[in-house]
Amino acid sequence: MSETEWARSPAVLRAMRQAAELGQEVLGTTSPNPPVGCVILDRRERVVGTGATRPVGGEHAEVMALRAAGEAASGGTAVVTLEPCAHTGRTGACASALRRAGIARVVYAVADPNPMASGGAEMLRAEGVSVVGGILESEVSGGALRPWLHFTRTGLPHVTWKYAASLDGRSAASDGTSQWISSEESRTRAHRIRACSDAVLVGTGTVLADDPRLTVRDGDGSPLPEQPLRVVVGDREIPGSANVLDDSAPTVRLPGGDPDHALRPLAERGVVGVMLEGGPTLAGAFLRAGRIDLVEAFVAPTLLGSGSAALGDAGVASLSQAWRFHFERVTMCGQDVWISAVPFEG
Amino acid sequence: MSETEWARSPAVLRAMRQAAELGQEVLGTTSPNPPVGCVILDRRERVVGTGATRPVGGEHAEVMALRAAGEAASGGTAVVTLEPCAHTGRTGACASALRRAGIARVVYAVADPNPMASGGAEMLRAEGVSVVGGILESEVSGGALRPWLHFTRTGLPHVTWKYAASLDGRSAASDGTSQWISSEESRTRAHRIRACSDAVLVGTGTVLADDPRLTVRDGDGSPLPEQPLRVVVGDREIPGSANVLDDSAPTVRLPGGDPDHALRPLAERGVVGVMLEGGPTLAGAFLRAGRIDLVEAFVAPTLLGSGSAALGDAGVASLSQAWRFHFERVTMCGQDVWISAVPFEG
Repeated sequence: MSETEWARSPAVLRAMRQAAELGQEVLGTTSPNPPVGCVILDRRERVVGTGATRPVGGEHAEVMALRAAGEAASGGTAVVTLEPCAHTGRTGACASALRRAGIARVVYAVADPNPMASGGAEMLRAEGVSVVGGILESEVSGGALRPWLHFTRTGLPHVTWKYAASLDGRSAASDGTSQWISSEESRTRAHRIRACSDAVLVGTGTVLADDPRLTVRDGDGSPLPEQPLRVVVGDREIPGSANVLDDSAPTVRLPGGDPDHALRPLAERGVVGVMLEGGPTLAGAFLRAGRIDLVEAFVAPTLLGSGSAALGDAGVASLSQAWRFHFERVTMCGQDVWISAVPFEG
Repeated sequence: MSETEWARSPAVLRAMRQAAELGQEVLGTTSPNPPVGCVILDRRERVVGTGATRPVGGEHAEVMALRAAGEAASGGTAVVTLEPCAHTGRTGACASALRRAGIARVVYAVADPNPMASGGAEMLRAEGVSVVGGILESEVSGGALRPWLHFTRTGLPHVTWKYAASLDGRSAASDGTSQWISSEESRTRAHRIRACSDAVLVGTGTVLADDPRLTVRDGDGSPLPEQPLRVVVGDREIPGSANVLDDSAPTVRLPGGDPDHALRPLAERGVVGVMLEGGPTLAGAFLRAGRIDLVEAFVAPTLLGSGSAALGDAGVASLSQAWRFHFERVTMCGQDVWISAVPFEG
């Protein structure tokens, strides 16, 4: 069996899926570092160590997994979602750590697009380690690493627009009532998306209309210790008593409605993944600017026929100008349909 | 094995699913008679005859299936989607035909709600035939028989509202362009729904805006010999040159916008299943009147942000008044999501 065949064996694919899950578990806690997962297999392909990226300043996934594996890593395989880094930043280069631990083979999913950190694969090969990349690449790059890959390639945070609407696309009834358009299961799911984000962004209109808290809470409703940054965009006055200004999480106010004027300062703060929870006007502005990278739509089995549309003016005059997406995943979520859509790459 | 156990055996369930498919194939051609399917099993549970309801005045499914089975029916089983009729209308009672053919057992899915025709099961039992009803009842009653069951229970045609919209619920861009919102696969599917309807209903507004032909065509674009009735509702003038007035299918004009004023005369004409293809105003009027029995929504992976909403005013002021549905089926159809929704029975 050749190295590339072996890298697609059931044991390795299973380990890669486990690594992807490990990365998913730390999504939202590692920025600006990537949420990487790593699984160490010993010579007999048994899992002897797992790890995921620690919060910034802490260890990378490979180091955590090697530590868990101890001596058993020697002669074994590291299965990791991202190409091990070659640079020495706050922590030592992972490529060096893998070599020192006596790892014989490295399998990774996604090549590191960061010119500062890439080259790990080459460095390892030069040291005699067998390295295969691209295993489950599209699956892994569409998972926990997606915001970070976008951030690294574009220099801007990855924006997930989450909304809930009736089947006919209304996010509120004509009297403004909107609680709750979607089912409890959808709201729980949306809450999890929020917990995996570095920042939650709304417009002043949403603050004035709904007075949301925008925090991540546990099952009892208590705020979790780690909170995404709250970002309020727009020029309208908001009262000092607004929930979004309470002390349960940090809040940033940014003037104007230009998405890039909001996203650039957030990128400078190390915000990699933004969840856009604003109303139709803000969503329309982000769409017009081409700054919606993922849509998470929760569509309820109701018809309203009037009331606020989920999406406001997006600069589309004719059907040929429609913003085209691809439905990446469509599943039931309680009684709702949960639709994940990404921009169509024609 | 008891009779009721046997009626749930794989051979019988398989025959019932085949019978349901046979009924589906004739949906739209049998009204006001129900589109029934029938499969005859011989003593060794082999399929020896199949049949479906012929157009009105023609034979019922059981008679067609018995004819195909011939002598092999004797001592066998009739598996039929609807309780065999006991009355002698244009054709002889099916219950008598089954007995005369020497059928030993009858398994049906749905009891006949029509007081004129019901009693077939009792009649057969009185003649010594073993009869079990209710097999795959919910599956079958949600299929081809659904419009007819609704018609029989309410005296009004069953209304399927079909629409295509962007993910944000727009059925046209702001300049009015709407061709094509949905994918070719969705349009083919919608065409099939039309072919299974007795009538296609639009408002004068849709005729003036889109000038649709509303006919059922084959793969080459030629109209099929059997066409659903075309129904145009509303008081606005339409030009004599409108496509809907051509001679490719009959057309009825009905004044006003009250759904019941349209549905009652259609019921009198024997229209069992109506496909509502009108615009947002007409759809809103039907929804307000509680006259939408099935929604077939084709949701495209696009965002528009402006343009005509798929659904107009439906009399909903507050979220608590939302029209509640149940998503019965959610599947991909080409690049679109095809959502079938039925009114929520709370």
